[in-house]
Amino acid sequence: MIERAACIGVGNVGRSWAVVFARAGLTVDLWDADPRAVERALPAIAAALGDLQSVGAAGDVAAAMGRIRSAPSLEAAVADAGWVQESAAEDLPAKQLLFAALDEAAAPDAVLASSTSAIPGSLFMASLAGAARCLVAHPVNPPHLIPLVELCGTSQTAAATVDRADAFMRRVGQAPVKLAREIEGFLLNRLQWALLGEAMHLVGEGICTPAEIDRVMTEGLARRWAFLGPFAVAHLNASDGIEGYFAVLAEAIARVQATLRTDYPPSDAVIAAASTEMAARFPVADLPAWQQWRDRQLLARAAGTQAPAA
Amino acid sequence: MIERAACIGVGNVGRSWAVVFARAGLTVDLWDADPRAVERALPAIAAALGDLQSVGAAGDVAAAMGRIRSAPSLEAAVADAGWVQESAAEDLPAKQLLFAALDEAAAPDAVLASSTSAIPGSLFMASLAGAARCLVAHPVNPPHLIPLVELCGTSQTAAATVDRADAFMRRVGQAPVKLAREIEGFLLNRLQWALLGEAMHLVGEGICTPAEIDRVMTEGLARRWAFLGPFAVAHLNASDGIEGYFAVLAEAIARVQATLRTDYPPSDAVIAAASTEMAARFPVADLPAWQQWRDRQLLARAAGTQAPAA
Repeated sequence: MIERAACIGVGNVGRSWAVVFARAGLTVDLWDADPRAVERALPAIAAALGDLQSVGAAGDVAAAMGRIRSAPSLEAAVADAGWVQESAAEDLPAKQLLFAALDEAAAPDAVLASSTSAIPGSLFMASLAGAARCLVAHPVNPPHLIPLVELCGTSQTAAATVDRADAFMRRVGQAPVKLAREIEGFLLNRLQWALLGEAMHLVGEGICTPAEIDRVMTEGLARRWAFLGPFAVAHLNASDGIEGYFAVLAEAIARVQATLRTDYPPSDAVIAAASTEMAARFPVADLPAWQQWRDRQLLARAAGTQAPAA
Repeated sequence: MIERAACIGVGNVGRSWAVVFARAGLTVDLWDADPRAVERALPAIAAALGDLQSVGAAGDVAAAMGRIRSAPSLEAAVADAGWVQESAAEDLPAKQLLFAALDEAAAPDAVLASSTSAIPGSLFMASLAGAARCLVAHPVNPPHLIPLVELCGTSQTAAATVDRADAFMRRVGQAPVKLAREIEGFLLNRLQWALLGEAMHLVGEGICTPAEIDRVMTEGLARRWAFLGPFAVAHLNASDGIEGYFAVLAEAIARVQATLRTDYPPSDAVIAAASTEMAARFPVADLPAWQQWRDRQLLARAAGTQAPAA
């Protein structure tokens, strides 16, 4: 049973992981290459725990904060940890150095997980002595408000490590999925960028505006996707289920698939059009306030749904 | 000001349009090539109006039902209508015959709209005498619970017709988007099938299961897409907005885009895997009950958000 977690790197992602672990009753050690990052993280963690408590998705804030410690060194942070979550900047040489140090300092049975979204774990985990206990645990930002975690080992990761990670993530209130092998972008960003690629195609070819793409999502597609994924939507859309759905629509789907352009580049013209429309609704100078608004919306949806097991 | 609407074809889609129009205070004439379809539609329309009323998204049900009439003929249905919404089966020769009859029977200033999702309007509208007042108004099923409507004219559609359709749809509580020109699948199905294509690729190549794709959506991606579209998500994900987002991620996005396979066919193996998993959660024999459950979920999300203007 994992009782202690270490958060290595406590920017926006790492500090949100600290919220997840402390909320679930674990002791949490924080460490960052920049000591001021830990100082900035602590009030943000307390505020996030307070927000969760206000909707019944976390217990006593002071007790949770009492389980969070600022570690004097990387070695001290991971010494007693059963789970180590690395959330440093997306820089391959830095991650290589960091994981070598973590593998050296952590107890042999500790799991070493990276939050990386863009770097394959095999590039900084697979050659370590402890490669079998290393994997990517890629969250959606911020993980204390969005439960999905993508678990992706390298060719050297033990199956038992992935299973331990799966059980641990469920225990702390997250929703893990397991990838059978490494693939660029994992699942979420592949699905996201497939859709965004075609969206850029539609905007770039003058069919519609970026704001209209967003309305297709919020007023249409995501009304169902918010509680049914794309396969379940298809299954419930036909009287005989998903086999009937594809039988009826196979020809239309093939016609559309043949004309998709999901490799359409985020051209300067598309980005400029999107920037103008988005800045009119969410001015860049006000983005911190809008980001807080976004997180309040996520919080309302998280209410009662993310109660951790511990 | 359009005061009367005709619903031509009253299966699942057409009867839901009747709910939208009657709720907004319009008089609605129903007609279907099969008279029994109208008999079946009337109690379904009353039930849907009752559901909407229960969450404050519709007024008096009896009054709304009093505005709905079963027309004795297609000609009688459209004679006084300012808006004609065709929702017959997706069959091109049938739609060609139907639109010729509608264009002949409807008043010159009536708008003729088709609910088609898979047939370009140009194939059955563009050669009519009244082609200028014809367009596609493609809903998401059911439109009384999902507000998005895609408005797509042919090369012969008058710009004023699209503008009238846009204003009318807003007035009756829908959320229209306007396509600048015809494109296979309009916007929603292109975005949906781009994502589903890559999802089939990931399942087909053994990276994950269909149920895991659905969890990536419900526990991850759609948490934000439900209230922010993909461009707004990107804009709020960077401290300097969407331009900064693409500047930082351009390389990672390009790497993912190069390996997407959104043209991946819905192979028998993928469909079989999805069918097995989906049927375990939503047995095909129970689909009508699950479809009611889905509509109750949509209804809860529609509460207070779709109050029509009239």
